[in-house]
Amino acid sequence: MKTDDTIFAPATSVGAGAISVVRLSGPQAIDIASSVLDRPLRDLPGYSARFCRVLEPDGAELDAAVVTVFRAPHSYTGEDSVEFSCHASPFVVSRLMALLDAAGARPAEAGEFTRRAFVNGKMDLAQAEAVADLIASESRAAHRVAMNQLRGRFSAELQEMRDKLLELTTLMELELDFSEEEVIFADRSKLLALADGVCAKAEALRDSFRLGNAIRKGVPVAIVGAANTGKSTLLNALLGEDRAIVSDIAGTTRDTVEETLTLGETLFRFIDTAGIRESDDAVEKLGIGRSLDKLHAADIVLGVLDLSAAPEVFLAAAKRLVSEVDFTQQRLVLIGNKCDKEGVNKNVIALNNFVLSPDYKSFKIESLPLSAKTGDGVDSLKVLLQVIQSARLSAQPGTLVIDARHADALGQAADALRDVRFGLRSGTPTDLVAQDLRRALHHLGTITGAVTTDDVLSQIFSRFCIGK
Amino acid sequence: MKTDDTIFAPATSVGAGAISVVRLSGPQAIDIASSVLDRPLRDLPGYSARFCRVLEPDGAELDAAVVTVFRAPHSYTGEDSVEFSCHASPFVVSRLMALLDAAGARPAEAGEFTRRAFVNGKMDLAQAEAVADLIASESRAAHRVAMNQLRGRFSAELQEMRDKLLELTTLMELELDFSEEEVIFADRSKLLALADGVCAKAEALRDSFRLGNAIRKGVPVAIVGAANTGKSTLLNALLGEDRAIVSDIAGTTRDTVEETLTLGETLFRFIDTAGIRESDDAVEKLGIGRSLDKLHAADIVLGVLDLSAAPEVFLAAAKRLVSEVDFTQQRLVLIGNKCDKEGVNKNVIALNNFVLSPDYKSFKIESLPLSAKTGDGVDSLKVLLQVIQSARLSAQPGTLVIDARHADALGQAADALRDVRFGLRSGTPTDLVAQDLRRALHHLGTITGAVTTDDVLSQIFSRFCIGK
Repeated sequence: MKTDDTIFAPATSVGAGAISVVRLSGPQAIDIASSVLDRPLRDLPGYSARFCRVLEPDGAELDAAVVTVFRAPHSYTGEDSVEFSCHASPFVVSRLMALLDAAGARPAEAGEFTRRAFVNGKMDLAQAEAVADLIASESRAAHRVAMNQLRGRFSAELQEMRDKLLELTTLMELELDFSEEEVIFADRSKLLALADGVCAKAEALRDSFRLGNAIRKGVPVAIVGAANTGKSTLLNALLGEDRAIVSDIAGTTRDTVEETLTLGETLFRFIDTAGIRESDDAVEKLGIGRSLDKLHAADIVLGVLDLSAAPEVFLAAAKRLVSEVDFTQQRLVLIGNKCDKEGVNKNVIALNNFVLSPDYKSFKIESLPLSAKTGDGVDSLKVLLQVIQSARLSAQPGTLVIDARHADALGQAADALRDVRFGLRSGTPTDLVAQDLRRALHHLGTITGAVTTDDVLSQIFSRFCIGK
Repeated sequence: MKTDDTIFAPATSVGAGAISVVRLSGPQAIDIASSVLDRPLRDLPGYSARFCRVLEPDGAELDAAVVTVFRAPHSYTGEDSVEFSCHASPFVVSRLMALLDAAGARPAEAGEFTRRAFVNGKMDLAQAEAVADLIASESRAAHRVAMNQLRGRFSAELQEMRDKLLELTTLMELELDFSEEEVIFADRSKLLALADGVCAKAEALRDSFRLGNAIRKGVPVAIVGAANTGKSTLLNALLGEDRAIVSDIAGTTRDTVEETLTLGETLFRFIDTAGIRESDDAVEKLGIGRSLDKLHAADIVLGVLDLSAAPEVFLAAAKRLVSEVDFTQQRLVLIGNKCDKEGVNKNVIALNNFVLSPDYKSFKIESLPLSAKTGDGVDSLKVLLQVIQSARLSAQPGTLVIDARHADALGQAADALRDVRFGLRSGTPTDLVAQDLRRALHHLGTITGAVTTDDVLSQIFSRFCIGK
């Protein structure tokens, strides 16, 4: 991809609005912009603006625009840049771009401005990717993890890991140089401790992706339980609107229904599922298979029980749910529903006793009585969800990885480092161990872009919008 | 409405994009903006920008933004203003606005920035309204009329008319002062000529609204003709896609179908109609009534004839169409359709003879043979439409009125001036004539806002978008 020409694109979405911004960046930006304006911009210092008229080739006024100049390297891209703040008319924007095109600039590809910022050293690859995440962030929590990454905290941790691996390499190379004299300079246990530390860090970061991804896309909360326990009614009560189809006929919900809801700082993604029960209906059987998949993929499972049923019925359902949850990764909340009905009090106690019984106590299952129908207790559930998510976040302090590409690279670096560890322990020749070490360095380097290829860059920046 | 406080709103549409711009305007703009930034803006001169961090009250970084300062009176509103160019994240934009709200600004109402520009004398009312028209313009022609109005050409013409009426008033007042001495200072024929000139100008401007409105909203082109002559096929051929339902059964199109298409500089609005024929079907009868309404409302009528029929059939249809067209306002193009069929050549000649016959020659009817089915000749029709519209424009040089409010006020001013004329001719007492004169001045004054009320302003600016 060419990087020595001048590119343009709309920087704001075209639609209703007062103004539209068109960006121009590249070595010819100021000259090209000047050629479509009534007054040249050449005298304008960086970070200053001017009220100009945009002129058609025949001298007719296309628009009046506030034009801001940025001079290399003090711009987003690191190049000379010009921003046109014009009237938000689709006609004006398309004509302005046609004029810039005719004057020698070309339309930017998706993400090309940020790609240039990366190429010009304004940000590393992880920071560039955080720009896209920041723009897409829908909640305060998602915004915060993207901002941390944009501010380079993740990059700094990666740099620290790379520094340690480079130290390891140096120590091993020393050993290699003097190996014929059979002097062991490097203390193997020190090498091992270094490799162990970086490997554990890489694994922890990779594992943080589950949480980081949930924050970006919404923490997945599966609403599961036997047929007709009120799962869809609960979803509606949470959302405060009639989203899912509700009926008294068991088995109404066949497709899984997803809805997002921001509670406090966090976006939750609620997944309503078909009831988990034996069924002869082929379509329902499919629904149930999907229900279990959704249960296993969720971070938080809301197990809905009908407290108006006999204890042996809802406790059997509870046991079934407990058997499906992976308590190392997931949290289970047993919802004691239908508390609006008569005489369920003793069943509330039975449910509490179940959760606190010696068999299940260690799982830290929550139980919560409520009535999805009347809405009583639903606010408590909203608070509980925030408390649970907050505890999960506290258990994973530090950087959260939010990009699948990064998690993958960290996993591959960890694999290589496990090979390094094995090599150091088993007395493998140092030059072979050094190969595994270089492999680990390579994978870490792909995250910040210290090591990269044009193909990888194109793939990364194509997920950006035009104009970024 | 308060105008001494500080208002904010997003200036760009919220949606996919790289950046979002939030505007802040009012006496406290620079202080309020400074209070949410890492560095105050107080030292920054107008038309200069700074890269700042937007901070939450707890010091956390919400975003990095390029912030541009404008100082009164050199800003859009004429007040101190600040523009935040931040990442286009819905979360960031909504948080930034919450911070500005907490810092003492308030959300702007629709059009409030432009209303302040009017109140502060940055533009008159006709210019302010042109801003909304400019943003909405979809074609070069619509853009040009809005830009002319924004640049004050219409306002200048109104001023000239007002000046002449004020001169008339002065002359009449002189006469009034000296009336007891029975000296007639003012030459009545000079007064009459002044009133006549301004009245004719007001009427011409009012009448230009038909053309001005058509340019803004699309020139209405009705496609009419007998059943099954290929009207829908022609519409599809013009649009290049299957928009209308087409079938070989006569009477398929019952609802009128509208589609817009930009040809050259002009937006055309094509209206497909049900066939004009006698019908026993009640629904179709309704459709036909609407067809005639649409024909009468159009600027250009495309009368579609089936040239594969016998000349007496399609010429009868042509005569029927000619009888419905108002040639002082409308243009008629007779489309000789189905030219792909065998042996229509002699009918093409018959149609030409009809158009050029002594009875119809003066109507300047165009005739055009084509095949909507194969597309042959459709490009010629597109060119012909542009030529016709261009001729209509040339016939009305000068300002085109594009707002119904302005056309209405001009009409009322013309009415008052006709009363003035009558008064001057019939020797009505001068003080009564002066009343009619003041009425004319009032109506002209409402256009630029020289005379206005808060209600009128609220109505005008409520059609603006938020942030303008």
